[in-house]
Amino acid sequence: MKNIFFTPGPSELFFTVEEHIKNGLKKNIYSISHRSKEFKIIYADCVNNLKELISIPDGYHVSFLSSANEIWERLIQNLVLNDSGHLVNGAFSKKFYEFALLNNINAKSYIFDKIEYATDNIIQSHELLSLTLNETSTGIMSSENKISDIRSKVANSLISLDCVSGLPSIPFNISDVDTFYFSVQKCFGLPSGLGVWIYNDRCLEKHYNIKEKKITGTYHSLEMLHKMSLKNQTPETPNVLAIYVLSKVLEDMNNIGLDMIIRDTNYKSSLIYDTINKHKDLSTFIKNKKIQSKTVAVADTKRENIHYINKLKKKGLIIGKGYDSTKNQIRIANFPTHSKEVFELLCDELNKL
Amino acid sequence: MKNIFFTPGPSELFFTVEEHIKNGLKKNIYSISHRSKEFKIIYADCVNNLKELISIPDGYHVSFLSSANEIWERLIQNLVLNDSGHLVNGAFSKKFYEFALLNNINAKSYIFDKIEYATDNIIQSHELLSLTLNETSTGIMSSENKISDIRSKVANSLISLDCVSGLPSIPFNISDVDTFYFSVQKCFGLPSGLGVWIYNDRCLEKHYNIKEKKITGTYHSLEMLHKMSLKNQTPETPNVLAIYVLSKVLEDMNNIGLDMIIRDTNYKSSLIYDTINKHKDLSTFIKNKKIQSKTVAVADTKRENIHYINKLKKKGLIIGKGYDSTKNQIRIANFPTHSKEVFELLCDELNKL
Repeated sequence: MKNIFFTPGPSELFFTVEEHIKNGLKKNIYSISHRSKEFKIIYADCVNNLKELISIPDGYHVSFLSSANEIWERLIQNLVLNDSGHLVNGAFSKKFYEFALLNNINAKSYIFDKIEYATDNIIQSHELLSLTLNETSTGIMSSENKISDIRSKVANSLISLDCVSGLPSIPFNISDVDTFYFSVQKCFGLPSGLGVWIYNDRCLEKHYNIKEKKITGTYHSLEMLHKMSLKNQTPETPNVLAIYVLSKVLEDMNNIGLDMIIRDTNYKSSLIYDTINKHKDLSTFIKNKKIQSKTVAVADTKRENIHYINKLKKKGLIIGKGYDSTKNQIRIANFPTHSKEVFELLCDELNKL
Repeated sequence: MKNIFFTPGPSELFFTVEEHIKNGLKKNIYSISHRSKEFKIIYADCVNNLKELISIPDGYHVSFLSSANEIWERLIQNLVLNDSGHLVNGAFSKKFYEFALLNNINAKSYIFDKIEYATDNIIQSHELLSLTLNETSTGIMSSENKISDIRSKVANSLISLDCVSGLPSIPFNISDVDTFYFSVQKCFGLPSGLGVWIYNDRCLEKHYNIKEKKITGTYHSLEMLHKMSLKNQTPETPNVLAIYVLSKVLEDMNNIGLDMIIRDTNYKSSLIYDTINKHKDLSTFIKNKKIQSKTVAVADTKRENIHYINKLKKKGLIIGKGYDSTKNQIRIANFPTHSKEVFELLCDELNKL
């Protein structure tokens, strides 16, 4: 039997990905020109399928980049002249904050250590305020309405939301944010190598206001990305394979239905936290249930994580280590491709350890 | 029968690519962590296979980025404080020059219109002087020893060489340049979405000298790329599929042998130019044989290009249009995956038009 990956990304491929990759080979998709009519149709389909799946409102636009790391860089280059604010609750939100500093931005970090974001007066207005729907490193999720709360407090800031390991499994109100983004190797179950950036008209307006005052990039300035996206193209030769396969996976997800994906996510999430809570060797890293991530469960382990990881590996179940060099933590992804059956199997095997 | 792509990239996949992609699926390569031992081995193999194929000297290093467009941006950000020079002989070398301007660099372009680079005193020293091994838009190749000539005239400049559609089919002396780069969807016959950047110790030294004086990027600053490459890793989650498949294609090319690849390239190149020269409707765009590209033949057409393109398409042979909106030009790629047999077939069909 093939291993099943519960790692927090790259992870198990969405169950239709293999077929789509092979169909792409059959149909010569990876040989066509990125300036051809055929590619423009793939591009438009991908954007439309995404808009349908997560109900993107009018006035929001979609561009394709190479990674979430790249999108952090482009956000700072294109939308911030002087200052940004970063709600930091893990390694990835911290990295985005550090990217701002590297760009000589007067960046401020608000550190929330394993607790919920505060929405009182400590959060000021910034040109860009960065939030995270789901921190992949710590397994902290934004609780319901939290993003709306923050939106109401900083009406003048552009708000960006890191959805890397959250979309489409964790719902949020898109109108509360001005820009959001994800990479495809998490919930969408694709091979890595594509980042998707969604931005609204306020972002474009801000970009046009500041673009003469600083260096905003070259081929991937927001202006260039947007201009080309209107022609269903990218400025450079993109990862055509990933855009094609993403389009097909989005089509599959639309057929399954977002409600079903979210319902299954919630069910599997209950299963895994229940298993962790009852386990003699495991305990949840995040105690507040409202912010326990639905898609990346993080557990502290009594013995070194490698003990549990290796035992499960022998059963063909691959789980993740804690982020960075933490030795007493495991991370378990709960993505749409993980069926209820394999999750039950995983929990059974965890119980036996 | 499947179509055969003679487009100048994306193009026909290298004949082993389909099998490698499928093997990657079987072996779960697209699910493994980019921080795992398994990935580090793939990374190291890919670098070593490339070093073997084109005999990269000591003191040169390899990093993986997302496209040649990105590498242009990183070259300017990381290696140039004030000024750069650009030998422009087509749309892509011009674009790199424009990227420098967008970064507020005092960039100078030396325009060579369909003729060979001059090596007399007009070319000055610059922090970075940019050359092109093979201009994909116009089909102009650097003639033998030209790069060495230029090297001897501008000893103090870093020299960068755009090898996007040249490597490994068009040989050059690597020691003549400080940095060079290519993307994988041309001669290497991969799906697009990976750029490979090679830089030497002089580039690193220059980067360390200027990095405190300007913004040199974030996750893909040369320092960060290099630091991670020493650990056989990338700063971000990369296009693992492409790095894996490239490694395998490089292995195949090493088995075939670079000499054989170059010999076949030269043979097929003679065939196509001979066909163009004898054709009543076609004439070579570049007249000087010394700089006629071996890998991208460009021909002016008597009737609109679409006439020839469509006729060949009916035979399953896909050739390229002229670059941009030119209506009376075609481009034909001669990459390692195109066998002598399919090239003879293409020339036969061209003769019948």
